[in-house]
Amino acid sequence: MILTALRSRAGAAEAAGRARETMQAMYPLCRSITGNGVRRTLDLIERWVPLERHEVASGTPVLDWKVPLEWNIRDAWVADASGKRVIDFQAHNLHVLSYSVPVRRTMTLDELQPHLHSLPDRPDLIPYRTSYYREQWGFCLRHRDRERLGPGPYEVVVDSSLVPGHLSYAECIVPGRTDVEAIVYTHTCHPSLANDNLSGIMAATLLAHAMRQETPQLTWRFVFGPGTIGSLTWLARNEVRLDRIAGGLVLGLLGDQGPLTYKRTRRGGTATDRAAAHVLRPLGARIVDFEPYGYDERQFCSPGFDLPIGRLTRSPNGDYPEYHTSADDLSLIDAECYAQAIQAAAQVIALIDANRLPLNLAGKGEPQLGRRGLYGNIGGSAPGEFEHALLWVLSLADGEHDLVDIADRSGLAFGAVERAATALEQAHLVRSQTARNKTSGARP
Amino acid sequence: MILTALRSRAGAAEAAGRARETMQAMYPLCRSITGNGVRRTLDLIERWVPLERHEVASGTPVLDWKVPLEWNIRDAWVADASGKRVIDFQAHNLHVLSYSVPVRRTMTLDELQPHLHSLPDRPDLIPYRTSYYREQWGFCLRHRDRERLGPGPYEVVVDSSLVPGHLSYAECIVPGRTDVEAIVYTHTCHPSLANDNLSGIMAATLLAHAMRQETPQLTWRFVFGPGTIGSLTWLARNEVRLDRIAGGLVLGLLGDQGPLTYKRTRRGGTATDRAAAHVLRPLGARIVDFEPYGYDERQFCSPGFDLPIGRLTRSPNGDYPEYHTSADDLSLIDAECYAQAIQAAAQVIALIDANRLPLNLAGKGEPQLGRRGLYGNIGGSAPGEFEHALLWVLSLADGEHDLVDIADRSGLAFGAVERAATALEQAHLVRSQTARNKTSGARP
Amino acid sequence: MILTALRSRAGAAEAAGRARETMQAMYPLCRSITGNGVRRTLDLIERWVPLERHEVASGTPVLDWKVPLEWNIRDAWVADASGKRVIDFQAHNLHVLSYSVPVRRTMTLDELQPHLHSLPDRPDLIPYRTSYYREQWGFCLRHRDRERLGPGPYEVVVDSSLVPGHLSYAECIVPGRTDVEAIVYTHTCHPSLANDNLSGIMAATLLAHAMRQETPQLTWRFVFGPGTIGSLTWLARNEVRLDRIAGGLVLGLLGDQGPLTYKRTRRGGTATDRAAAHVLRPLGARIVDFEPYGYDERQFCSPGFDLPIGRLTRSPNGDYPEYHTSADDLSLIDAECYAQAIQAAAQVIALIDANRLPLNLAGKGEPQLGRRGLYGNIGGSAPGEFEHALLWVLSLADGEHDLVDIADRSGLAFGAVERAATALEQAHLVRSQTARNKTSGARP
Repeated sequence: MILTALRSRAGAAEAAGRARETMQAMYPLCRSITGNGVRRTLDLIERWVPLERHEVASGTPVLDWKVPLEWNIRDAWVADASGKRVIDFQAHNLHVLSYSVPVRRTMTLDELQPHLHSLPDRPDLIPYRTSYYREQWGFCLRHRDRERLGPGPYEVVVDSSLVPGHLSYAECIVPGRTDVEAIVYTHTCHPSLANDNLSGIMAATLLAHAMRQETPQLTWRFVFGPGTIGSLTWLARNEVRLDRIAGGLVLGLLGDQGPLTYKRTRRGGTATDRAAAHVLRPLGARIVDFEPYGYDERQFCSPGFDLPIGRLTRSPNGDYPEYHTSADDLSLIDAECYAQAIQAAAQVIALIDANRLPLNLAGKGEPQLGRRGLYGNIGGSAPGEFEHALLWVLSLADGEHDLVDIADRSGLAFGAVERAATALEQAHLVRSQTARNKTSGARP
Repeated sequence: MILTALRSRAGAAEAAGRARETMQAMYPLCRSITGNGVRRTLDLIERWVPLERHEVASGTPVLDWKVPLEWNIRDAWVADASGKRVIDFQAHNLHVLSYSVPVRRTMTLDELQPHLHSLPDRPDLIPYRTSYYREQWGFCLRHRDRERLGPGPYEVVVDSSLVPGHLSYAECIVPGRTDVEAIVYTHTCHPSLANDNLSGIMAATLLAHAMRQETPQLTWRFVFGPGTIGSLTWLARNEVRLDRIAGGLVLGLLGDQGPLTYKRTRRGGTATDRAAAHVLRPLGARIVDFEPYGYDERQFCSPGFDLPIGRLTRSPNGDYPEYHTSADDLSLIDAECYAQAIQAAAQVIALIDANRLPLNLAGKGEPQLGRRGLYGNIGGSAPGEFEHALLWVLSLADGEHDLVDIADRSGLAFGAVERAATALEQAHLVRSQTARNKTSGARP
Repeated sequence: MILTALRSRAGAAEAAGRARETMQAMYPLCRSITGNGVRRTLDLIERWVPLERHEVASGTPVLDWKVPLEWNIRDAWVADASGKRVIDFQAHNLHVLSYSVPVRRTMTLDELQPHLHSLPDRPDLIPYRTSYYREQWGFCLRHRDRERLGPGPYEVVVDSSLVPGHLSYAECIVPGRTDVEAIVYTHTCHPSLANDNLSGIMAATLLAHAMRQETPQLTWRFVFGPGTIGSLTWLARNEVRLDRIAGGLVLGLLGDQGPLTYKRTRRGGTATDRAAAHVLRPLGARIVDFEPYGYDERQFCSPGFDLPIGRLTRSPNGDYPEYHTSADDLSLIDAECYAQAIQAAAQVIALIDANRLPLNLAGKGEPQLGRRGLYGNIGGSAPGEFEHALLWVLSLADGEHDLVDIADRSGLAFGAVERAATALEQAHLVRSQTARNKTSGARP
């Protein structure tokens, strides 16, 4: 199986430690769904792995949507009569509503209020707010600061541009031994939020970096793109390859102290779901059913695509108090939790990659394993784990059960089942094929 | 959704109150499976709703059966030597075995005994007994009174007629916007028993009356007919329309203080079953699997028809001590329990009527809801129930899940899901069709 | 239903008592997978039932295997310098590794050690060890005795022959009223082990003996053959009849004090599994899923055959401490436990035999049972068990449910359901066919 180094806690922790510097460099960049913040983020990823970079022009139709205008921002502030900046983009790039259109006006506080966003119940945090698909502008600030604002007048400036340009995304492709593919997707938008989603970006980068040292069975694509419009764009441009996708993960929010959380694919029971459950159940992870609210799995699992792509996070969405606020900074990333998440992702990915559908070529009765050196020579006492795994693979290798099914059904570790399958393949007792998009078990 | 008034407890209670007078008028009528008692009962229903009335001649073949002779009774008694009536039909019409043939004889007590029916363990109650399909006669009486009978002789008179005539049943039809149909069936036989089944007759009447104020999606037929032979007759005469039936209920025994009880259709998992569970689970109702003993659901759910018609009662069959005795009188009808049952029936019927099978016309990726005014404009915080319902409908609108499925799967109220489906239909993102006879979930 | 006598505890106990003498005669025979010990065992079975005996030549290909050389042994010992036998086959035939090749040498203890097998943790027991498919020799002994052995030299003799000959197996065939078949298989190998498997051999013999007094519905084959190679040989020679097999049991290890244990067929949900569960659940038996390790069910349930043949034992494999040691002698057979096992096997077999797939010929509505004398004549009170069973059979007789399904679904005893089915068949309301190899319920 692949990703050996990251599949151990020590290896994952070591890799996460090495990634810290890159995350620090990414943190201050103002990433939105388009613009130079995204491009600079991709530059930093490219220090680790080669990327195929894509620039898709504003206005390009992608499924029911269009690629939006490109947004860039140089500066933004609200200054009082003395010229003092009471809200300052230079201090924190969450202060500006993402995708704010340019503005340069003098306004009273009353006129400004409809453009301000704060959190009365958490007055010390700056909220993160966006308006991608409707032209407006706004500022986000600590509620404590908002309450101190005098009546004005204020100089209000957003020095941004919202003009035809491009949406940027990138792929790191690791070719496999077959033409079956798998996807890891992580969202590159969100400025100055560490858990959401520098943790996902960096985890995907480390996984791609490790994967490139090996030859996986599947061709793996690590896709770095903005939320929603990025996955929609990738899907629109890759429809031809979708029926070759055997599995995959959306990664994000992997560094907080919440429990590991796997969200099933829409169909449930896909190879990805079963691989994830096999790895994550013993870790005490939460495994939740698909729901259509969430991250980019919404698009991969929309009913017209219905891909076998699940999602791995720690606390998803609003489940941790720092979510979408200035408190989601690098101090929120717990080294041990982050290493565990990377290790778990590596293990799930390794299972998806090693999974296959064995077919017993000698299914009438058991084959004589002893003659082939696969079974002990003195009878009368119980066989060991390897012998049991051989019998389980032979018994369930009927084209209906892949290796993860066999591991689940037998109670054996996937690794033992995979070694038995390999031995039986080498003895020409079993022929395996890559499992494509098989569903078993309970459906929604 | 339809039946708005009856879907509230207050509305249901108010309607049940108004129905009290009709139930008092119905109570003394000697209803059997044929005869003038049934016709007079239909007359009283017709004060509330127009009926299509049917008279089917004795001897008409209906499936494996024949319509029986028509039975009418004027008087019946057992009188002692002094001429005193010791058993008197005029005092209570349960005193006569239903369908007793005429008799006029003088007999000793010993000769009379085989024709007497009483309840030794409940000596103060008159039992209800019938002999529809074998010619005999008998009297039912309080066991206490039976023990007091002297050796006789007695004058024994049943002044009845059992001759070729007709079986009477009636339908109140409320046309819908589609040619898909639904059925509410209630049995009109049983003399002077209030819970079994004036409660069902009157509930069906109130539901039909309320339904006529509105335009349902489905065409609803409220059928008033005798038990077993009535539903068999209706089925025999309506075979051509059976494949248009999307759901329905058999109603009866709705006024006692036992728990609401829904009995699943034979197949289980039909739209009716799922609608009933959605409504009734939160009320703490009992939901029981189909069994072939019971009321007219036996016929609708016989394997050759296997219709999606469930049954709503409070205590079914022998589950309450007054069952099939003179104690099942109008005092047994608990106003609050009866109102709750009418409300529950209205809610189940409303769900069956509003249920439909949505198909996502833009299933590749999510459609851009914001552009259509269906989604909030400031991103970054969690969407509300309506937005969640939109996403759930879009996600499951794959032709495999109807609106009740979507409500169940999402944990949202059916009403929220139905409003979202309507909004998506109006935005041309979803096209729905009436769900016909779909089964999902567990089968027997 | 068949096997009436053995289906009662008293009848089973009486039969087991009569079998005791035969088991005592079988115990000292040195049974291996081939040879005269097996033939003499079959001779003893033939005192109870006629057998069709088969001799299959060494080298005959059977599926992936070949029939091995035939092994016979006259004597074997290890003697010290004084000529005293320190290990003596005459004392216990477990002392020789089964299938030991001939040897006649003088050896030191150090040279002998690799050929000795003992149990350090149970020093007073002789283990049972075999080497069927690799030519070697060895001795098994109490560990306590092994520790007392001096340095030698020793005279080491195995006076055996391993030469082309035959594999012996036999069948007792009881013809049924249909061409559908069922199998009882029990392994005849294992020398001087009482529970494993004189208990199985004798139980199968008693069942065959009782079955011959009656005319079952199915043709039953009681097959007596060695483990693994015996069932493989039978399967290879009977492939043409496999699609006629409706059910069956592998029997073995039925006399110890462990709980009755039924192991499901590979597919689960077969008629055999459902019949076994119906009989065994009320007895508190363990019912376990299929696993590919075990006895001859491994071959019958290999994926290329996948037959509906389950396994009934008490403690299987290594689950009792005396397993595969000299402590598995006749004193281990608990009379009460053995009788219970025989009774349970008889009941499962009777259900498999009586099971059938009824089809309701009058499925539109209920047929009028009263007219046919199948239903009480006074209505108004609840019907009895027979009437309920009639309704259940009619309701589920749709070609999807066999009689065991109907018993399970209704909660009625199989016997009541079977009587109702017979009455409905006689009334021409139902037509039944033998259920072949139907699977329902959960699969692995």
